Amino acid sequence: MLEDKAPQRTPLSQFGEFGLIAHLTEKVEVNQPTTLKGIGDDAAVLRFENTSTVVSTDLLVEGVHFDLSYMPLKHLGYKAVVVNVSDICAMNATPTQITVSIAVSNRFPVEALEELYEGIRLAAKTYNVDIIGGDTTSSQKGMIISITAIGVAQENELVYRSGAQENDLIVVTGDLGSAYMGLQVLEREKQVFQVNPLNQPDLDNYTYLIERQLKPEARTDIKGLLAQLEVQPTAMIDISDGLSSELIHLCKNSGTGCNLFEDKLPLDPQFISTCEEFNIDSTTLAINGGEDYELLFTINLSDFDKIKGNPNLTVIGHMTAANEGMHMVTRANTKIELKARGWNALTEEKQD
Amino acid sequence: MLEDKAPQRTPLSQFGEFGLIAHLTEKVEVNQPTTLKGIGDDAAVLRFENTSTVVSTDLLVEGVHFDLSYMPLKHLGYKAVVVNVSDICAMNATPTQITVSIAVSNRFPVEALEELYEGIRLAAKTYNVDIIGGDTTSSQKGMIISITAIGVAQENELVYRSGAQENDLIVVTGDLGSAYMGLQVLEREKQVFQVNPLNQPDLDNYTYLIERQLKPEARTDIKGLLAQLEVQPTAMIDISDGLSSELIHLCKNSGTGCNLFEDKLPLDPQFISTCEEFNIDSTTLAINGGEDYELLFTINLSDFDKIKGNPNLTVIGHMTAANEGMHMVTRANTKIELKARGWNALTEEKQD
Repeated sequence: MLEDKAPQRTPLSQFGEFGLIAHLTEKVEVNQPTTLKGIGDDAAVLRFENTSTVVSTDLLVEGVHFDLSYMPLKHLGYKAVVVNVSDICAMNATPTQITVSIAVSNRFPVEALEELYEGIRLAAKTYNVDIIGGDTTSSQKGMIISITAIGVAQENELVYRSGAQENDLIVVTGDLGSAYMGLQVLEREKQVFQVNPLNQPDLDNYTYLIERQLKPEARTDIKGLLAQLEVQPTAMIDISDGLSSELIHLCKNSGTGCNLFEDKLPLDPQFISTCEEFNIDSTTLAINGGEDYELLFTINLSDFDKIKGNPNLTVIGHMTAANEGMHMVTRANTKIELKARGWNALTEEKQD
Repeated sequence: MLEDKAPQRTPLSQFGEFGLIAHLTEKVEVNQPTTLKGIGDDAAVLRFENTSTVVSTDLLVEGVHFDLSYMPLKHLGYKAVVVNVSDICAMNATPTQITVSIAVSNRFPVEALEELYEGIRLAAKTYNVDIIGGDTTSSQKGMIISITAIGVAQENELVYRSGAQENDLIVVTGDLGSAYMGLQVLEREKQVFQVNPLNQPDLDNYTYLIERQLKPEARTDIKGLLAQLEVQPTAMIDISDGLSSELIHLCKNSGTGCNLFEDKLPLDPQFISTCEEFNIDSTTLAINGGEDYELLFTINLSDFDKIKGNPNLTVIGHMTAANEGMHMVTRANTKIELKARGWNALTEEKQD
């Protein structure tokens, strides 16, 4: 597949390490007023005045976190930034800078890295973050992307995982499960392709799901929306591993239990119809499927009127006392215990 | 070798991703006043007042940057931190925090990661930096360590690569080439071991060289020393790829040429004697061997008296006009052009 997209194949060794980094980053612009010096020295220089700085880091590994047989490199670059920007959003902070380190085996030509960097630059532009540094080196096998994201917030704006109280409402942005369902669709098409490479996939019925998987967006809009609604969340996390797993994090960190209501889960119609087609229970996917990069947060009950009816926000449950446990209340009104079945990079790993 | 050191082998999958991160980071302490919140949320929270913040990131890949057949995991963890802390020192800043991301194949047991983390924690303690975040995940092959280091400095203390002027003196800390020579010794012993595993290596004559390779130190002391001497460097870089390569960076960024004097290069007696034993030209190694993590900087000629005779600092040359080029003046008083022959991760890479 790579060959079709990149007919020109310049070997990485043509540039050497410094030349390659310079080549890939020559189009990188610096826009943030807090960036005094970007790429090009031993370290970037930043200047934060009267704000708190938040820092988050993530490592994406080929064959573990992404599959290049259906993930175009530009999308991968974009998504790698989104994953990290989303962590900054989950602190109720505003992302400002990222560093990008990439290790690739020399099976990749320079053109592949250019495509990857195009996605990284597009995401940086979309989210208004400066690319301030990075490292490009070789790997023994596959591609590894490590991004560190930096953001800012006033100290009283920051939201931790630990601030939820009993009776707080549980709120989620957007809809759930579609990114994971998109992955299932792509996996199926990959298998079809392997059996019959001439078969042309018809993905029209799955465009939303596939977009959620291949081009997720970080909810940088939510901080502003909540400020406008005058709502300060009590606890917050982003949904990378699945609603169930993230909600358990909030409960454990806050020392609460929770009741999540199955009939309140926000699901996209395309997600529901595809679950039916695949004969998979939509609730199971919605609470365990990862990579939605929506925000999950809690608010004080008294703030309900402020968020009520907002199309971006759905109340899906409430916090309880810790000794009541963590449960989902089903449509049939039975309580089942919440478990973290989220996607897990370490138990799914392949033998070396 | 791994088996001998770690007779207990707990598979990574026993913990799961979150459990493993929690297990590895449970002993991590936070000491810096600028760290408001370390590991345990979506992002760490820092607070910098009236200082500039510097950020640097590096990726270390098994088989490219390190070889576990002679690099003990604890040393590797230590060195991974040193490499990044050294970049902060090269800005004349003080390191304050690091994030640590690790990808490993499941050939590594939990005990191996514990050993690696022990080295990381020791380095963090030695250099007084907080470990504020990270990610631990699986790789398809080998081990990858990605560290981002953060530091602080007053804006007028910062030293860039670009500030050197014609006639500035070129100064280097410590001595040169020993880390690379240590690597040659270890490579030789590895080959001897492969031929005859019963052969017990006698490394007594190479202890300094091996220590420079396996346990380098970052020059966090130099910022304070220079402040005490009331010397503000005009340009600075750390020596990771070799003196020649780093000096070329300084010249190109500053728009100068340089004359480096062969007879001024600071060499350790053990380095010189081992070069003779290996029949390698010591100057070639001293200017091209990497990983010394010493600092290379320039100062105004008028500051010479302030640094003269300091055992930590050696004047090795001076900057010239750009059109004079970049040269080394040999002991025989001939000028040879400086070339960046430093170790290069991308041209040396292996086929996938």
